[in-house]
Amino acid sequence: MKIETLRWREGRLELIDQRRLPLEFAYVACDDAAQVARAIRDMVVRGAPAIGCAAAYGVALEAQRYAGAARVQFDAALEQSFEVLAASRPTAVNLFWAIERMRQCHAQSRDASVEAAAKALLELAQEIYGDDIEINRAIGRHGAPLIADGARVMTHCNAGALATAGHGTALGVIRSARDAGKHISVIANETRPYLQGARLTAWEMVQENIPVTLVTDNMAGHLMQRGRIDVIVVGADRIAANGDTANKIGTYTLAVLAERHRIPFYVAAPLSTIDLSIADGSAIPIEERGAAEVTGFRGVRWAPEGVSVANPAFDVTPAALITGIVTELGVIGQPDAIKIRALFGR
Amino acid sequence: MKIETLRWREGRLELIDQRRLPLEFAYVACDDAAQVARAIRDMVVRGAPAIGCAAAYGVALEAQRYAGAARVQFDAALEQSFEVLAASRPTAVNLFWAIERMRQCHAQSRDASVEAAAKALLELAQEIYGDDIEINRAIGRHGAPLIADGARVMTHCNAGALATAGHGTALGVIRSARDAGKHISVIANETRPYLQGARLTAWEMVQENIPVTLVTDNMAGHLMQRGRIDVIVVGADRIAANGDTANKIGTYTLAVLAERHRIPFYVAAPLSTIDLSIADGSAIPIEERGAAEVTGFRGVRWAPEGVSVANPAFDVTPAALITGIVTELGVIGQPDAIKIRALFGR
Repeated sequence: MKIETLRWREGRLELIDQRRLPLEFAYVACDDAAQVARAIRDMVVRGAPAIGCAAAYGVALEAQRYAGAARVQFDAALEQSFEVLAASRPTAVNLFWAIERMRQCHAQSRDASVEAAAKALLELAQEIYGDDIEINRAIGRHGAPLIADGARVMTHCNAGALATAGHGTALGVIRSARDAGKHISVIANETRPYLQGARLTAWEMVQENIPVTLVTDNMAGHLMQRGRIDVIVVGADRIAANGDTANKIGTYTLAVLAERHRIPFYVAAPLSTIDLSIADGSAIPIEERGAAEVTGFRGVRWAPEGVSVANPAFDVTPAALITGIVTELGVIGQPDAIKIRALFGR
Repeated sequence: MKIETLRWREGRLELIDQRRLPLEFAYVACDDAAQVARAIRDMVVRGAPAIGCAAAYGVALEAQRYAGAARVQFDAALEQSFEVLAASRPTAVNLFWAIERMRQCHAQSRDASVEAAAKALLELAQEIYGDDIEINRAIGRHGAPLIADGARVMTHCNAGALATAGHGTALGVIRSARDAGKHISVIANETRPYLQGARLTAWEMVQENIPVTLVTDNMAGHLMQRGRIDVIVVGADRIAANGDTANKIGTYTLAVLAERHRIPFYVAAPLSTIDLSIADGSAIPIEERGAAEVTGFRGVRWAPEGVSVANPAFDVTPAALITGIVTELGVIGQPDAIKIRALFGR
């Protein structure tokens, strides 16, 4: 089954409603940038590359809405779409990267007609989308050799087809290793509070017929201690210039455990996840989400009234704990600022 | 509110049904050893000291049932109660310790009447119960000085009044520190899959008016990295002769993180949790529980069909990661086999 996380259909953006997976498989449609921003904020669509693609389409939707309007209205609507989309979630940099590309495209079309500008913006959104699939396949090609035949691969959250335009970053590496003929199995951390591992990664692996074992997040240390994990591969939401990596909450803990047990720890991400404007991880904004995600799940509450809640959605893994960052241009082993700059040709 | 986890009422053992907390507060009654064994297995009652007390009462219930029977039937019924209770859960050693004490009491009453033997067994169960509260208060007294005024204390699972006859081990230390006038706050890990932290520890702390912040298990590393945890106190299900400690799954991970961040990591447990017959943690049996606990919660399923599940209920923290074990006789700093033997006067 090919998973189309986002699709452009008859002038609308359709998104798999990831809040309802795996119990229900359904698309929701967005007609304007505000709807896309809400879908991002409410986690209809999530995963750094996927929200980058969604944001690009969100701008394109707005351009389409105003394609018959006067230039001044078109420009104002686009400016507002950049703002509303940028305010949807703070940590994943791919969102801002995609908005910035759309902004530049808009700026370059100042002398064209509004219709032509809208067309160019949709074409760029489609290019960002198409590129993402190609980039993930390249990440998979570079990452597959890191996974040995027979390996038991731990992953966290969902860095799969559902987190991207297709194929996935961390799960893309796993898919590519399997496609190369390796017999591998996946240990998926459930990833509280939003359970992306239990709901999304487990579902993707079942669809792919890749053996998958679901565990709670707090079992990772025990499994490593007992020698039941060979390698760890995760995605990323933002990578600082020195390689420090923000990813789903719990990733840092896995990296600390992996170091203790000498288990290779890889981050798989496109170059668009690397934020050269941020020197190290301490400056990456960490989204704090609402209490209801922690006090229960889907309307079932299990915590008593009267508790406070902390709900940071991401944490930062220092570069020193990362064995390698797998990008579309190759693997950066023991990442640091010099190696990362070199990859960008700077 | 005084929490009576177990209570003896008119010849029956009543247990707070901990599966229903914090949404409902209700007791279930047990009339024989098999019902107590089932209550232990099904987690109506849980926590190493509490299941020790429950098992002792389970034997006493069986003795009471056969107090009018012939000696041979009485003896056979008791033997069976030892077996059925010992088979209920494998990891917490307090269960086996309590059964062994009841077995010895039974052996010593061979020459007494069946009625007198039954009476002696009930008295011993009540002594084990009463002692446990005293022991927890002593653990609290020894542990309280380890908690600084203003400390933010992380705990895992529930080692509280609900895990004991009263007061608690880890939460007993916290209660005693608060009673000594210290302003402390608690960070409770929710403790998947069974959510003892979210449901039981959070509830106990709210009852006590001790400020409590609930987090998912995978947030612990991030909070330590950001300097938001001052000290960690957990309970124990079995401590080997060298200090290696089996406790709720996830404890080992906390200890690894605490070492990295130089955060003191204490285990609070009665001497009955120390198993001198086991040289180190590798020989502690780790209970593997059913898949349904991991694939959802209380009948709400969120994992897809087709996934495998691992569900080890405990892990083992090496003694080298433990700052101190707080017992009723005092604190064993940097525990090892020699210090632990000395505590037992051997």
